[in-house]
Order: sequence, then structure tokens, then C-alpha cells
Amino acid sequence: MGLLVLGTVALDDVRTPSGTKKNMLGGSASHFSMSARLFDDVHVVGVVGRDFPRVHLDFLKRKGVNIASLAVAGGKTFRWTGEYKKDDLNSAITHKTEIGVLGDYQPQLNDQQRSMGYVFLANLAPSVQEKMLKLVRRPELVGLDTMNLWINTALRDLKRLMKNVDLMLVNDGEARMLTGERNTVAAARCLRAMGPGVVVVKKGEHGVYVSGGNFRFAYPAYPVERVVDPTGAGDTFAGALFGYLSRCRKMDERTLRRAAVYGTVLASFNVEGFGMGRTAPLTMKEVDRRLKDYHHFCMWA
Amino acid sequence: MGLLVLGTVALDDVRTPSGTKKNMLGGSASHFSMSARLFDDVHVVGVVGRDFPRVHLDFLKRKGVNIASLAVAGGKTFRWTGEYKKDDLNSAITHKTEIGVLGDYQPQLNDQQRSMGYVFLANLAPSVQEKMLKLVRRPELVGLDTMNLWINTALRDLKRLMKNVDLMLVNDGEARMLTGERNTVAAARCLRAMGPGVVVVKKGEHGVYVSGGNFRFAYPAYPVERVVDPTGAGDTFAGALFGYLSRCRKMDERTLRRAAVYGTVLASFNVEGFGMGRTAPLTMKEVDRRLKDYHHFCMWA
Repeated sequence: MGLLVLGTVALDDVRTPSGTKKNMLGGSASHFSMSARLFDDVHVVGVVGRDFPRVHLDFLKRKGVNIASLAVAGGKTFRWTGEYKKDDLNSAITHKTEIGVLGDYQPQLNDQQRSMGYVFLANLAPSVQEKMLKLVRRPELVGLDTMNLWINTALRDLKRLMKNVDLMLVNDGEARMLTGERNTVAAARCLRAMGPGVVVVKKGEHGVYVSGGNFRFAYPAYPVERVVDPTGAGDTFAGALFGYLSRCRKMDERTLRRAAVYGTVLASFNVEGFGMGRTAPLTMKEVDRRLKDYHHFCMWA
Repeated sequence: MGLLVLGTVALDDVRTPSGTKKNMLGGSASHFSMSARLFDDVHVVGVVGRDFPRVHLDFLKRKGVNIASLAVAGGKTFRWTGEYKKDDLNSAITHKTEIGVLGDYQPQLNDQQRSMGYVFLANLAPSVQEKMLKLVRRPELVGLDTMNLWINTALRDLKRLMKNVDLMLVNDGEARMLTGERNTVAAARCLRAMGPGVVVVKKGEHGVYVSGGNFRFAYPAYPVERVVDPTGAGDTFAGALFGYLSRCRKMDERTLRRAAVYGTVLASFNVEGFGMGRTAPLTMKEVDRRLKDYHHFCMWA
């Protein structure tokens, strides 16, 4: 059946205490795809510029990602230049954001894609997310991710969009910004009242908290001692979570728990390498090996 | 068999967004005891002043806490005046600390107590903790808690003491201060190299991470939507954890997991009320009811 993901396909220049990398394939849709591809067919919806290296496109295709609706427009690819400091690897410091072709991007889908039911709106302007959602004929399950930028600059659009999604992912800082609630449990409840039936609060090294209609649960993060580059960890988490839901074609508590567990495992791989260095070569065999280790880690007494 | 706990028995004046309370029974040994009493016999070792209300002593006795070595000295009881602000209920703001009789306290044990093997050194000056430990004839299992104050002012004493304890509890901030490591997993490993075979990192609303010789595990916090007063949550956690170990008379992985789970549950009750308002009336029946709920919350998919 497969899933659609709308988001950025970017070039990342990143500096972390482990080193500096330039022109890496990045962006919310790319990281999401590299993780979701392990669970279901992934169709990326987005745009790159004519400067986008052929090698990145070939790479996505080789990984089984459908790029039929990844447009190539005249102009420059969206580029993010950022840094993580040793004393706070959880917080990205943005040095430069070059919007490029994203500036006047209008998402388009082919006919087959308009009939797909599982849709994930990865981080992008809420107005663009909304346009893409309107192209889908009968959405079955819609997931949403966002970031502080849109909460600050496009809150009305975001709130309107939230009314039409089933599942929303936020990090703890965004949950607080959107609700004014510092308590994660209260903030998640508050977010659910704004639309999404299920809210997933990503807390980085502190794990994940999930609030649904008649259930709530939490898991700690998989213990990673050396974080190399956290860029895309949230998107990687979302990709595994939504990819698993898409494969199962349901979102009950049990499925969602397993989806969150896969999200945690994939995110732990993501932070161990630069860009997609660790997630790109992954097979389900390696994923399930870490899942087993993680299960022991979380095990009840 | 029972356990010994050395620590402060204090009078607390606390302000939180939920209200203001004065002259509450507080202190590390008191909160520890109110939790540990549910699992094993608890002997408090500490000192209060002549101003200490009779009603608090009667209360401790009524709760089954042995106060034979809770000395009453001429002078004032240790008093803490503090506050928690709405936007960060995890961080205590200390307005005043009145040392009083703690200033020249020399711990003493009776003969029966000198033969007890399970010893917990709750938050107090490391030099006093060390003196008390020397009074114990054959320590079997020694637990240690501390705070940022001692890391800043008595680091040498603390490091010496760490070499002689089996189990150390720290919060994430203290772990970072002691090791310079921001990563919890790395910090815990580093702390273990300094002495204690088991390190328990308390992360408040983010749960707990435990590192032992050949195991490590983590649990999320029990979800509490309205935190009334977090004072003593760490001591309450420690009381249940160490009380459970004392009841079982062992510290293997399985026992430690269950101990950490009880610690989490008791701490969740603690923050729901002022002082010991929620923990004092607790029975094991209520504790096990929440444990069951918590088990479901943490359940694997």
C-alpha cells in the first residue's frame, strides 16, 4: 500500500564535536524515508534545485524510495548549515538557512499517489503541508511534524492543520510552546484537544511519551554513549513509527507501542553517525537485533 | 533485618504554585524513611533541635520508624526555606538554609544498630556520612546520596567516600558536575569507575537510568499531571529502592529493577502532595495498585 511523505530534501553542512561534514543529503523527508523504507514503500514529495547532486537522487532510488514526485526546480536546493556543541548535543544551533527552491514550491502528486491513504507531513511550512493534504483523495491516516519556526511564524495555519491530522509528533520544547504547559503529560493532553487523536512527544535522550484516547505510554531512549550527529533523529524516529503503522494499516495501542519502539531504535542508529551514515546501510536484521537488546534494557522486573 | 539511614530531619517552609506550607516535617532521612518503612524496618540516624515539634517525633514513631538514634540537641532544628516556580517545578530555589544543630553533629549508633548491615547515607556532609559508616561493624550494602552543595564544597571527602559504597544515587545535574560528562550513559560509567558498583541516575520527570557491572536499564517516570511539591522526591525514590533491596537482602539485576520500579512509584506519590502528605498514609495495597498501572504504562509492545 505504501505511504506518502511530504518534507524537505536538503543539503546539510553540519559541525559536531565529532567533525564537520558538508553537502550531506539531509532534510526531513530524506531522514524520514531512510527509516520508513525498512517498513513500507515510501513516496517522497518535495523539491530540490538543479544544483542537487545526481548521486543523492541515485542513492534515494537505490534505497527503494520512490522519487516520482520529488520535483527538480530552477534554483538552489534548500540548505541548512548548523552546529551542535559538546555541552548540549540536543540543541541545534542554526548558522544559516537557505530556502532556495522551497520558496515557491507547490506540491504535486501523480494519480496513483493521490489515491494513497497514509500521509505524513514532515517538517515544512504548514500552508504547504495543507496544500499537499488537499491533493490526497481519501486520507486514512495523517501524521504531522513541525518545528519551533512554524509555531512562531505560522501558528494560525498550523492550528488549522492540526484539526485535520490523526497523529502529531512534537518535541518537548514545541509541546510547551504550543500549549504553555511545561508538564509533558498535561501538554500532550492539551495538544490532543487541539485536534490530533494521538500525540507523540519526542524527548531525545529522555525517550518518548505517547498520549492517545484511552491509553498513554512511555519508553526510555536506547542508551547511546557517543552521539556523533543528532541531525534528523526526530525525522528518523517519525519514519520508523509511521512506516510501521503504514505496514500494519492500523493505529491501535499495541501497534503504536511497537511503532514507537521501532522509532526509538532507528533514532538511536541515526545519532551514531553523520547524516544517514548509520541508517542508510541498515537492514531489518540489524534493526531487530538492537530491538532485542532494547527490549532487555526496558524489561520489567 | 532492617536498615539504617543517616540524613537530615528538618523543618521545611515550602512555596510552590499550589500553595505555601510552613514547619513541615522534611529532610532527606525523613522522606527516605516514609518510603522505606513500607519495605523494611527503618532506623533513622540524625539530629533535631529542642524546637522540634513533639508531634513530628510521634508521627515518625507511629509510622514504625525507629528513632532511637535520632538525637535531640540544644539549639535549632535544621530548616530549609525554598520555592518552586511554575515554569520549572524540577528546580528548587533555596531561599534560606539554617544549619542549627547539624553544625556540630556527631552521629551515634546503639549496639544493635552497629551490627546492622544495610546502610544508607542520605544527603548530608560527606565527612559526617563517613563517620557514621565507620560506626557500622560489618557493612553489607552501603548506599549513598549527595547534592550539588557537597560536590562544590567537599569534593575530596565525597570522592573518598565513593570508594567505599556499593550503590550511589545522583540526579542528572550532579552526574554531570562530578564527571564533566553531559551524556548520562557515559557519566554513569564514569561514576562507577570512581567506586560504586551500581549507579542510579534520577532524572525526575524523565525517569531513571541504572548502570551496573554487566547490566544497564531505564524506566520512564510515572506520568503525574499535577506536581504539587517535588521536595523529597529523590529521597522518597531512594527510600523505596533501598528499602526493597534491604527486604530482599540482595542487589542482583532483577532485584534492582524491581527496586527502581518501586522507587519510581513512591516518588510519583511524593510529588502529588506537600511534604509527606501523600506518602505518609500509603499502604502497600495502594502502592501495588499504582505499580500495576505503571507496569501497563511501561509495557512492551
